[in-house]
Amino acid sequence: MAFRFEILKNDITSQARLGRIDTDHGSFSTPAFLPVGTQGTIKSLTPEELVEVNVEAILGNTYHLYLRPGHETIGRLGGLHTFIHWERPILTDSGGYQIFSLGDLRKISEEGVTFQSHLDGSLHFLTPEKVMEIQRTLGSDIAMVLDECISYPSSYEYAKSSTQLTTRWAKRCLQGRYENDPALFAIVQGSVYRDLREASAQDLVQIGFQGYAIGGLSVGEPKSAMRDVLEWTIPFLPESAPRYLMGVGTPEDILEAVLRGIDLFDCVLPTRNARNGALFTRLGKISIKQAQYTEDRRSIDESCVCYTCRHYSRAYLRHLYLSKEILSSRLNTIHNLYYYMDLMNRVREAIRENRLLEFYKSHISNQNGLEIVSLTHFQSK
Amino acid sequence: MAFRFEILKNDITSQARLGRIDTDHGSFSTPAFLPVGTQGTIKSLTPEELVEVNVEAILGNTYHLYLRPGHETIGRLGGLHTFIHWERPILTDSGGYQIFSLGDLRKISEEGVTFQSHLDGSLHFLTPEKVMEIQRTLGSDIAMVLDECISYPSSYEYAKSSTQLTTRWAKRCLQGRYENDPALFAIVQGSVYRDLREASAQDLVQIGFQGYAIGGLSVGEPKSAMRDVLEWTIPFLPESAPRYLMGVGTPEDILEAVLRGIDLFDCVLPTRNARNGALFTRLGKISIKQAQYTEDRRSIDESCVCYTCRHYSRAYLRHLYLSKEILSSRLNTIHNLYYYMDLMNRVREAIRENRLLEFYKSHISNQNGLEIVSLTHFQSK
Repeated sequence: MAFRFEILKNDITSQARLGRIDTDHGSFSTPAFLPVGTQGTIKSLTPEELVEVNVEAILGNTYHLYLRPGHETIGRLGGLHTFIHWERPILTDSGGYQIFSLGDLRKISEEGVTFQSHLDGSLHFLTPEKVMEIQRTLGSDIAMVLDECISYPSSYEYAKSSTQLTTRWAKRCLQGRYENDPALFAIVQGSVYRDLREASAQDLVQIGFQGYAIGGLSVGEPKSAMRDVLEWTIPFLPESAPRYLMGVGTPEDILEAVLRGIDLFDCVLPTRNARNGALFTRLGKISIKQAQYTEDRRSIDESCVCYTCRHYSRAYLRHLYLSKEILSSRLNTIHNLYYYMDLMNRVREAIRENRLLEFYKSHISNQNGLEIVSLTHFQSK
Repeated sequence: MAFRFEILKNDITSQARLGRIDTDHGSFSTPAFLPVGTQGTIKSLTPEELVEVNVEAILGNTYHLYLRPGHETIGRLGGLHTFIHWERPILTDSGGYQIFSLGDLRKISEEGVTFQSHLDGSLHFLTPEKVMEIQRTLGSDIAMVLDECISYPSSYEYAKSSTQLTTRWAKRCLQGRYENDPALFAIVQGSVYRDLREASAQDLVQIGFQGYAIGGLSVGEPKSAMRDVLEWTIPFLPESAPRYLMGVGTPEDILEAVLRGIDLFDCVLPTRNARNGALFTRLGKISIKQAQYTEDRRSIDESCVCYTCRHYSRAYLRHLYLSKEILSSRLNTIHNLYYYMDLMNRVREAIRENRLLEFYKSHISNQNGLEIVSLTHFQSK
């Protein structure tokens, strides 16, 4: 499949870059946030609604689709794009994160990983080669290598051998590629150990992939660890390839990572929060279930122009939430995704105009109770 | 509020009529099916989607809205239309059906009915006057009188005294009306007793309302009882007023009632069935969860042009259903409501062209396993 990454502009106030990724299913701008379509749907929304909130690319979960309905079924039905009625780019993860979240239900060897399905307890064996085959059959635009997502905390010894295994697996993923395969991104591991992160990045770059992800974060480590890992890792990644911070995160996490040179993000946060009634506004998050909104005629965010904010009051959204209505999840998800997409759009504008650092400071100062972390190293690129 | 019912055409092959109801929130064609918006939303859909499937009017449940968020809250927020973002006509029921479904949680007297909320056990007392006040505050276009919905079976004695109480309550509803109140429909009761149905209809027509509903059906009685009640009751209702068969029903029930002269219907069937994976097609209902649809590329109904059928395979809909995805309820509801709205549209066309009886026969013969019931009395109007 076609794949191209182009950097259009570097922000002179930080390490942020404005770019574009081209695929056979069209292009998308970076820095980009990809909503998560776990089971072949971004929960509660149609593809048309995703387009309306300006989603340009989505993530699909290999683990879930492999188990149900099965990648071969999806393949016979014309591939994931056709199956779910989404014509724009799809990045699929490798299933590593989900499998390693299973804890005792999985067992790892040099060859691959054995795990029990969370659905029916059936036993499965996935290898790097098999994970490539699944993503090929799904018809993904960007595939991820199989990795072991190391839990936090982990011993140095365990992290070291696991990270080396991930690198060997990445190599096998690459070796088994077919002509028309999805673009392939490797995943840097190494837990919170600087030398392991550096070695992982160097080894993977040495092998050579079309993009590099930073994995093993958002697994319970302190916030400062994420910043450290980014700063240790990014200098070893090539300028010319997209950098993807997996499973991140809050608007503030995303801004901090963009400032450090990250191009891609995915996270269930905006969609899951929406279903739990937690809604993003320019002044911080609100919980729509609170009694103070019972007769509040205002929209969620008066500066927002999403479908939900154009037509519904906080009072109605609170009522739907308390009544456990399906429409509650829908309207809240539309708003939260619009918020994220609008944030990414404003981030890209700020990079274009060399004012991302200023944008970040102004964002943080508008959020109740958030503090600006040390920014000195962003002062020059 | 403005209210007008006009008969545009009588079908010469049956007692069916084509008509139009005008309200302050616009007009709608009859025979009409009103989807049920129990808690201020037709479950899973937006108002725009209702318009897209050609819904012209909806029903709101007084009982549910009274309990949560409360009619006074809705009133202060500008009324039900504004609250839920629906600009077309709304008919509200009186709460009678829900209250009488509560069984032991309610107690009835001449004055009104005491019941315990199913939400929090709190005690409430509703009178005919109070029910009018609630519907007035909601800003309904068509209000229903408070009635006792008699369970099936009931003794003749109980049915008689209850039906007379419903008539006295209907009178009180009318007496307490304000200048700008919603149009008011009375409800014929009488269980399955011919003389009680006749007396109920005569007494209510004597008092004089803007429309007449037939209540107390779809409560477990045999199918033939519904047909009997319609044939006993309708001759006592004025030609010039709309006739509303509450809580009905299947496509076949609706067709049989239209043939007998009914103009309005409401039912949770299409929306509830949708959420349970039961989908209507021109050839009968299908259950989308069945294994035979695992790799079925066809739409639900290849002759259907609804959003769901234009874009999604049975295989995908089955996957969404098994995965308990919110989108499953949405896509299924869109299809089932489109099916109902399209059915009503075809019913109106058939009346316009004097071929409703033929349409009914052809509908039944297309449904697997359904039989045409005795139709002799439709041969001439």
